[in-house]
Amino acid sequence: MRIDLNSDLGEGFGPYIIADDAGIMDIITSANLACGYHAGDPVIMDRTIGLAKAAGVDIGAHVGYPDRMGFGRRPMSMDLAELEKHVIYQLGALEGLARPYGRKISHMNPHGALGNLACADRAVADALVRAISAFDPEIAYLVLTGTELETAARSAGRQTINLFLADRAYLANGQLAPRNLPGAVIKDSKTSTERIMRLLDDGTLVTIDGQILRIEVQSILVHSDTPGAIEMARAIRSAITGAGGVITPLSELLQQS
Amino acid sequence: MRIDLNSDLGEGFGPYIIADDAGIMDIITSANLACGYHAGDPVIMDRTIGLAKAAGVDIGAHVGYPDRMGFGRRPMSMDLAELEKHVIYQLGALEGLARPYGRKISHMNPHGALGNLACADRAVADALVRAISAFDPEIAYLVLTGTELETAARSAGRQTINLFLADRAYLANGQLAPRNLPGAVIKDSKTSTERIMRLLDDGTLVTIDGQILRIEVQSILVHSDTPGAIEMARAIRSAITGAGGVITPLSELLQQS
Amino acid sequence: MRIDLNSDLGEGFGPYIIADDAGIMDIITSANLACGYHAGDPVIMDRTIGLAKAAGVDIGAHVGYPDRMGFGRRPMSMDLAELEKHVIYQLGALEGLARPYGRKISHMNPHGALGNLACADRAVADALVRAISAFDPEIAYLVLTGTELETAARSAGRQTINLFLADRAYLANGQLAPRNLPGAVIKDSKTSTERIMRLLDDGTLVTIDGQILRIEVQSILVHSDTPGAIEMARAIRSAITGAGGVITPLSELLQQS
Amino acid sequence: MRIDLNSDLGEGFGPYIIADDAGIMDIITSANLACGYHAGDPVIMDRTIGLAKAAGVDIGAHVGYPDRMGFGRRPMSMDLAELEKHVIYQLGALEGLARPYGRKISHMNPHGALGNLACADRAVADALVRAISAFDPEIAYLVLTGTELETAARSAGRQTINLFLADRAYLANGQLAPRNLPGAVIKDSKTSTERIMRLLDDGTLVTIDGQILRIEVQSILVHSDTPGAIEMARAIRSAITGAGGVITPLSELLQQS
Repeated sequence: MRIDLNSDLGEGFGPYIIADDAGIMDIITSANLACGYHAGDPVIMDRTIGLAKAAGVDIGAHVGYPDRMGFGRRPMSMDLAELEKHVIYQLGALEGLARPYGRKISHMNPHGALGNLACADRAVADALVRAISAFDPEIAYLVLTGTELETAARSAGRQTINLFLADRAYLANGQLAPRNLPGAVIKDSKTSTERIMRLLDDGTLVTIDGQILRIEVQSILVHSDTPGAIEMARAIRSAITGAGGVITPLSELLQQS
Repeated sequence: MRIDLNSDLGEGFGPYIIADDAGIMDIITSANLACGYHAGDPVIMDRTIGLAKAAGVDIGAHVGYPDRMGFGRRPMSMDLAELEKHVIYQLGALEGLARPYGRKISHMNPHGALGNLACADRAVADALVRAISAFDPEIAYLVLTGTELETAARSAGRQTINLFLADRAYLANGQLAPRNLPGAVIKDSKTSTERIMRLLDDGTLVTIDGQILRIEVQSILVHSDTPGAIEMARAIRSAITGAGGVITPLSELLQQS
Repeated sequence: MRIDLNSDLGEGFGPYIIADDAGIMDIITSANLACGYHAGDPVIMDRTIGLAKAAGVDIGAHVGYPDRMGFGRRPMSMDLAELEKHVIYQLGALEGLARPYGRKISHMNPHGALGNLACADRAVADALVRAISAFDPEIAYLVLTGTELETAARSAGRQTINLFLADRAYLANGQLAPRNLPGAVIKDSKTSTERIMRLLDDGTLVTIDGQILRIEVQSILVHSDTPGAIEMARAIRSAITGAGGVITPLSELLQQS
Repeated sequence: MRIDLNSDLGEGFGPYIIADDAGIMDIITSANLACGYHAGDPVIMDRTIGLAKAAGVDIGAHVGYPDRMGFGRRPMSMDLAELEKHVIYQLGALEGLARPYGRKISHMNPHGALGNLACADRAVADALVRAISAFDPEIAYLVLTGTELETAARSAGRQTINLFLADRAYLANGQLAPRNLPGAVIKDSKTSTERIMRLLDDGTLVTIDGQILRIEVQSILVHSDTPGAIEMARAIRSAITGAGGVITPLSELLQQS
């Protein structure tokens, strides 16, 4: 049983720190790095790439809208041809900073409002896939099952990796339970870990309304920016390895498939 | 006699236009493109790269300070290790956008206050050369003779190209005459063209104080952002080709050398 | 017959110029100034306020989204409580810069995507009115007839001024004809001027589909950022004064009412 | 013995938090608020003004350079006439947001690189004083003794308040000991508090090289953005009030003088 652990990192800006990037790096096997749009700046990107290289962690592009003040969480209506150029700009900047470290971008996933839109709107998902393919068709897509981004990536012949959110409950249709539903966000390590153990054991999950959902998972997203996040990530890692699972960088999972 | 004609392009931003980029593109053979710091944005960068490709024009990085409001003309005191990351970010973004066009960055020259500092301060020049070398040691440096940037680039074993400013008078020591000296900026095409013809003919120049200066020139900078600039650029091109000179992209000059 | 002529000004940024602000200033009687969000910066705001004062032109706030690259034309989904703070920030900055000139903000109208939303969405219109009222309830609203912003402002007991777009055709319901309809944008001075003369004469307008619309107009918007815009503005002014109309600053119209 | 306690607040940005603004508010009597340039945004400014009003804390403008990524700590060479407009923009924006709370700006002090320059360069100090006087001549200047900003403000007939840094050692000439000197930064509450008690007792201070310095202090700067900062601030407040001192908002000190 091989599985990737990933986290969104490099989301500080200038003097601002939002998460313990160094603390999470030894726990995970792939990182999604902010590219200077919704968060991040060249100094932070460089530092986080260095940490990732030292820890043998894969580098992904966590692209977003050009809206630092809103942290990329505000939906922006952007012409899709323009969006493509903004995505390539971010990919190029990130891979440029990774080059002195001898690293490339292995994967991507979109951040915040752009991510939500790419899950729900096929035209936006297609624009993302066009942009990324024009930059490097080898880049894989970290996707939630059943989203438009997954469909768009697969339709274009790109590799996808199924992402599971360790701290979010699911609906029976395989989608995330909306945050405003009671129990949608899982805050204790024990529940979170038990869910993952069951997933690894028999590939199923109990949904927010008590049904059994079969779901394929290749990568688990953990956080580093909330109180207790690193402890939860560590507990998840321990539980997986304790049960004989092998934490494996996403790029190695892709080579197998 | 082979010579490159180059211009600083892509310096608009969002809805703002500052020069006739399309109009100059057929006249020049290499372009220095703003990278979204002092000017430019992903949409403009993409469009300008497309124009350059169509015209067979080389693409260079015109890197600057992160100061759009000041157009990169305000000196900023930036930690040199930080500056390196900012330069790589810009190079990566530009080359990322050039990749779908099958193009790479052939050369660079720094803009505005960063350019002035790189000419005058060896530590800044070295930081630029370190950053660019880490990204791609094949990138050539478009430099004014006798500057610290030229020294820094050559000391690191990098290729340099001597740049001549078509509309600026020179001092006897080979430096540009400061803008506040009478006659420092040359505004009529005739004078500008005559100077270039003499340069091509015997490699000399009459300085602002009437002396004869021997100067080696491989590339001539023309403008596209002032009234009459395109006419002056066209006159220069015609004069050169009329005298048997061959306007040659900088990358071809480099292959010869 | 008294009428105000107004224009959106101060929409440059840093080195970028987008319109002939000085050229239009002697033609108009009120100006809507960008406040550093969608466009403008403190230096441009100060200069434009100085020009307005010299010409006896009223100063209005042309508030927008924090999106310079998109010129405030991209819809952004912003929390309304946050939007209020952004609007007050812009009003404060503009009035701060007007204070050394002994001037105050007489009116406002929202720009671009924020303007469109304020016309169509009552909640957004109410947020704008709350923000502006908290800053200064004397500020008047330059509004298109029949919009949510007009309703919101009047419901709150604020003063409104009916705005007529000199270069846009209207629908029978009093709304602007969408830009994509043939004839929606009027480009020649003659047609534009004739429409205004008729409006001043009998208060009616021929709509895009040939119907007669009765519409009340207190202020006419003219442009300064398109070829021929200043000529059209001058033609409109001449036509009005030639017919005995009096071009009157908006603040004087308000005092009368 | 009346003394003001002040702190630099509102220095977050978007989702980023840099200090415990709410935690310090009950300890201090005046706050210097970031104005959206080096830090802060309209939402944070509004919230911090609200906290200040609730706690009876005076509001000051902590103006800086337009450089969020560098947190206003990077020296920028800016035309002084332009600088004036940037300062007024910030003052206007802050006072605009304070208006709904019925508050005005009582004082200012410049941040980071702008602050350093205003202390050392009379021309910059004069530009600041011109800008602030044009906005509101009643605004007082929180200054370090012996600086150009103090001289500039007094020469213009403005009110100044002597600021003492609770956690910094002093030189015999009354200037701050440079940060790189051993002992320049005082990190324990006990030493910091003892210094202040002595100052309140006999108006003297032991300098970093063991001399006795007589210094007049009207306001003490405490921090909220370092570990233990709030505890130190609380210790200082307790020590002062325990010794019979009265913590008094800066605006009340000014009325007395």
